[in-house]
Amino acid sequence: MQFQPILDEITAILQQDLQQHGPGGQVASYIPALARVPAGQIGMALRTRDGQEAVAGAGAQPFSIQSISKVFTLTLAMQKLSEEALWSRIGREPSGTAFNSLVQLEFEHGTPRNPFINAGAIAVADRLIGLFGDTACAALTAFMSDLAGEPIGYDTEVAESEASTGYRNQALANFMKSFGRIDHAVAQVLDLYFHQCALSMSCLQLARAAGYLCSDGAHPLAAGQAVMTERQTRRINALMLTCGTYDAAGEFAYRIGLPCKSGVGGGILAVVPDRLSLVVWSPALDASGNSVLGQKALELFTRRTGLSIF
Amino acid sequence: MQFQPILDEITAILQQDLQQHGPGGQVASYIPALARVPAGQIGMALRTRDGQEAVAGAGAQPFSIQSISKVFTLTLAMQKLSEEALWSRIGREPSGTAFNSLVQLEFEHGTPRNPFINAGAIAVADRLIGLFGDTACAALTAFMSDLAGEPIGYDTEVAESEASTGYRNQALANFMKSFGRIDHAVAQVLDLYFHQCALSMSCLQLARAAGYLCSDGAHPLAAGQAVMTERQTRRINALMLTCGTYDAAGEFAYRIGLPCKSGVGGGILAVVPDRLSLVVWSPALDASGNSVLGQKALELFTRRTGLSIF
Amino acid sequence: MQFQPILDEITAILQQDLQQHGPGGQVASYIPALARVPAGQIGMALRTRDGQEAVAGAGAQPFSIQSISKVFTLTLAMQKLSEEALWSRIGREPSGTAFNSLVQLEFEHGTPRNPFINAGAIAVADRLIGLFGDTACAALTAFMSDLAGEPIGYDTEVAESEASTGYRNQALANFMKSFGRIDHAVAQVLDLYFHQCALSMSCLQLARAAGYLCSDGAHPLAAGQAVMTERQTRRINALMLTCGTYDAAGEFAYRIGLPCKSGVGGGILAVVPDRLSLVVWSPALDASGNSVLGQKALELFTRRTGLSIF
Amino acid sequence: MQFQPILDEITAILQQDLQQHGPGGQVASYIPALARVPAGQIGMALRTRDGQEAVAGAGAQPFSIQSISKVFTLTLAMQKLSEEALWSRIGREPSGTAFNSLVQLEFEHGTPRNPFINAGAIAVADRLIGLFGDTACAALTAFMSDLAGEPIGYDTEVAESEASTGYRNQALANFMKSFGRIDHAVAQVLDLYFHQCALSMSCLQLARAAGYLCSDGAHPLAAGQAVMTERQTRRINALMLTCGTYDAAGEFAYRIGLPCKSGVGGGILAVVPDRLSLVVWSPALDASGNSVLGQKALELFTRRTGLSIF
Repeated sequence: MQFQPILDEITAILQQDLQQHGPGGQVASYIPALARVPAGQIGMALRTRDGQEAVAGAGAQPFSIQSISKVFTLTLAMQKLSEEALWSRIGREPSGTAFNSLVQLEFEHGTPRNPFINAGAIAVADRLIGLFGDTACAALTAFMSDLAGEPIGYDTEVAESEASTGYRNQALANFMKSFGRIDHAVAQVLDLYFHQCALSMSCLQLARAAGYLCSDGAHPLAAGQAVMTERQTRRINALMLTCGTYDAAGEFAYRIGLPCKSGVGGGILAVVPDRLSLVVWSPALDASGNSVLGQKALELFTRRTGLSIF
Repeated sequence: MQFQPILDEITAILQQDLQQHGPGGQVASYIPALARVPAGQIGMALRTRDGQEAVAGAGAQPFSIQSISKVFTLTLAMQKLSEEALWSRIGREPSGTAFNSLVQLEFEHGTPRNPFINAGAIAVADRLIGLFGDTACAALTAFMSDLAGEPIGYDTEVAESEASTGYRNQALANFMKSFGRIDHAVAQVLDLYFHQCALSMSCLQLARAAGYLCSDGAHPLAAGQAVMTERQTRRINALMLTCGTYDAAGEFAYRIGLPCKSGVGGGILAVVPDRLSLVVWSPALDASGNSVLGQKALELFTRRTGLSIF
Repeated sequence: MQFQPILDEITAILQQDLQQHGPGGQVASYIPALARVPAGQIGMALRTRDGQEAVAGAGAQPFSIQSISKVFTLTLAMQKLSEEALWSRIGREPSGTAFNSLVQLEFEHGTPRNPFINAGAIAVADRLIGLFGDTACAALTAFMSDLAGEPIGYDTEVAESEASTGYRNQALANFMKSFGRIDHAVAQVLDLYFHQCALSMSCLQLARAAGYLCSDGAHPLAAGQAVMTERQTRRINALMLTCGTYDAAGEFAYRIGLPCKSGVGGGILAVVPDRLSLVVWSPALDASGNSVLGQKALELFTRRTGLSIF
Repeated sequence: MQFQPILDEITAILQQDLQQHGPGGQVASYIPALARVPAGQIGMALRTRDGQEAVAGAGAQPFSIQSISKVFTLTLAMQKLSEEALWSRIGREPSGTAFNSLVQLEFEHGTPRNPFINAGAIAVADRLIGLFGDTACAALTAFMSDLAGEPIGYDTEVAESEASTGYRNQALANFMKSFGRIDHAVAQVLDLYFHQCALSMSCLQLARAAGYLCSDGAHPLAAGQAVMTERQTRRINALMLTCGTYDAAGEFAYRIGLPCKSGVGGGILAVVPDRLSLVVWSPALDASGNSVLGQKALELFTRRTGLSIF
């Protein structure tokens, strides 16, 4: 299949949509650096298992990957830790609705539902501090740079803004700490967490970096090297499908039918197992925190290509 | 791939497991007809898209399909109703943990999370009463018989027992009714619901009946006839993956990686899209209400065959 | 203290208020018999420990006492049952907000928070069925008639309407039954519950009937006879203060400072321990289900008389 | 009434109880300074409206007043702030069960249920920072010293331990901050909160300091001076009755029938409006966090004296 024309076509449809109906949602506004990103942008990029690439629209423009980083910190933790060490304090079930965030933490005694909600990602960050200590932020950029094939860094303004306004994440981390579920100092754990959210990458860089998810764990660029095992890869894809898009995981599965992980920066990473990784970006979000046009792009893509895991 | 030897092998492994370690769980005991089913039984059956069949162990022995029926009542409703008419009162998101059952109904003003939890299936039953009125129970057996290629009926003892002890389902139905989410009389709706749970089928009959789920909606036995569209079929599979196994949907996706629907009778229906439908049965359940050995059988099957959607 | 002029004065203030600003709330509308009661009515009546009585406005007009009946069914149950038999399945704590009704029942495995929320009153009704069987409805009217000194009966239209629309109470009763917290048939228990809500009494009749609550348990009319012990009486008053006014118990304690029990018919029973029982009635309700002008009347009364337990 | 012999008698009964059955509960153990307090101690003290005092057992020995401080910080806030300024961000309803702490904060968008749960007291502390800024801790000790008639100070070891382990309070404060319900820096607000919990006072000092609660707001020691108005005083007493003893407010009202505020240091302050203030202390706690023998002492006191508000 030739993907460049497909991405071009989808991007053109959405740009027309944008001009006629506007972005259909709101850009995340809780920190200035995100609030000032223009809503009317669309980018797409994909990379197939065998290395074919396609980019369309603003697909080469860096954006704040936010929660998409949770896929990569989880990968890093799965590389280094036993199943037992990793999963003893983090669940693997969908979280139900948003209102459950602290409710569920309370009922489940500080054990987050899964690694893709904030509480779960903070718990993963705590494990990474255990592995890398003071060098955890550097270890994460090194990992991302290696996967993407070029230097990846943090947007420090975003990281600082997250830190200075992240009261809810402070609440989550302290709450888990009160249950004894966080080993390291809350400030150190959150520093890593706020940095990972501030990673700045383009659709293309993300599609490359996520290449191992569509190739049974093989490193996207370094032939013969494994990022993780085939089974681990399948399991990350399964977690993305059931838990990757906030409270809309069921809706994504129903309408798009691919493992996805979204971020409030407007990016969505999608995986067609054994075939390709695909990233879309458009900053305006719906009420669930998922990119409005990003979802449309993915629906058009699966309809146009027939690619779906179901 | 030749599936008969694979099913034989898995059944043999599990029977050995049974002899050495016992069933590893409890048979459902809330009604006598389920409580007296011997725990130490294992059955498997599958049917491929192109009609190859395999049966092993007690795969031809009828059991109470219970919640697996929710897949078929949903299918029947999707056949006859518009998207809007069906989904306006039922969600499509995973339900989180069990404790949420009534909690979530309350927060969401009587709208059940998805059609595979009890509340959601009761809401689907209400729609079927709207379509079929007094003949709904007969319409359901006719539908099942047509799919399975032979007469399928209710275990009336089970249906009566469900009705006489189903206080929680009475509570759910009345609660939804109090929010105006149920159109018909609670007693009539629950009568259908208790009957659908009491459908008695073997692994093989179920694997045949579910054949449309692995063939883009094509009728499993009647060539050229469609049970539903390709898109509808994908969507049912997506719902099964995210919501089909009570509170263990994430765990099933993570460990098994196939759309599944389980029932407290000990059956589990699994689908490999475009390939095959597979049913396992073993009555002893884990704490989530899923068959212990059924899950093992599915794990062995995906490991042995490499079949997974991820 | 001369109470007749005080009640006259308060009634006059509220009638003026009514003319200028309207009733300030909505009459209960879930059943026709309540919905058609004119909003612009005010009644008051009190009876002191030593038998002084005062009536003002529509204080002699019968209305549907609804949840005020919960005080009397609890009294009847406390008369006949041991502490253990009564309180083993009903709590004595405030219920927090309304949203908790089914949530709390679920978390607390079917044990209602207190006898003055619907679930708790249904549990009390179940105990009364245990005591009186088929004659429970008759036993309750006999008890009320004895306390009030004249025949008290049910408004059968109200009772039938409650029964035909009481889905939420059906849900509560079935839910408790599913936890094994209800001994008798749900239909029989609810029949009593719907009848008790449909008791028709005037402010004066209620103030007389509740006379034992301001006289250490002494029968209001039959000298030398006890309705309950001094300690039991104190305890009912304590329950009324902490749990008697739906989600507004804290607000009532803060602003009025008397044990109260309200009903959606618009009545509120208040007790000044050792001094008097007071009943106000005005049908328009606030969002919590308490009479708007009834609350104002009680505030004016406590401000005017200085009577408060705090 | 002569109270000294009554307190002596009750203390003797409880000391005998202690020797025969042990303390019947556990001393608070979350910080070392509380954990090492010997469980087998009992103190009582009271002061009547007209200045009569009685002390028994360890009634003159200082202990950590913990949550009893919430009565005094609320008083200080009510002195200085309008009703509107104070209550716009704090409710006045009982909180239901403990599990609700964060649940309710979440449902009610960061508004704590009442000023006597931790979240509510933290919100009050935030208001006091607004009034006193950096001198808030000093202002509180000055207030307490003035009420008690002698210098009152903080146990700095306790305050520091609270600060270093108070993850749950960190979570509550950050969570409210995330809803915009806290104006000042979380660290500054919690510093005051941890200090107020660490106030060290004896039963007698507390009974004196609370004297205004049984005398319509009159300063306990300075004749003619008011701590608050009569109405404010009644309202604090009402809040203590409905919300003062964690999840056991209903039980306290039912069994003891007096406004009470307890602390995990083992103290309980009780008020007989218009009559006297009474403080009991015994460090071993029940599951709700209330002093086991303290409750027995209060039950014996109300039974022996007949004093109850109901």
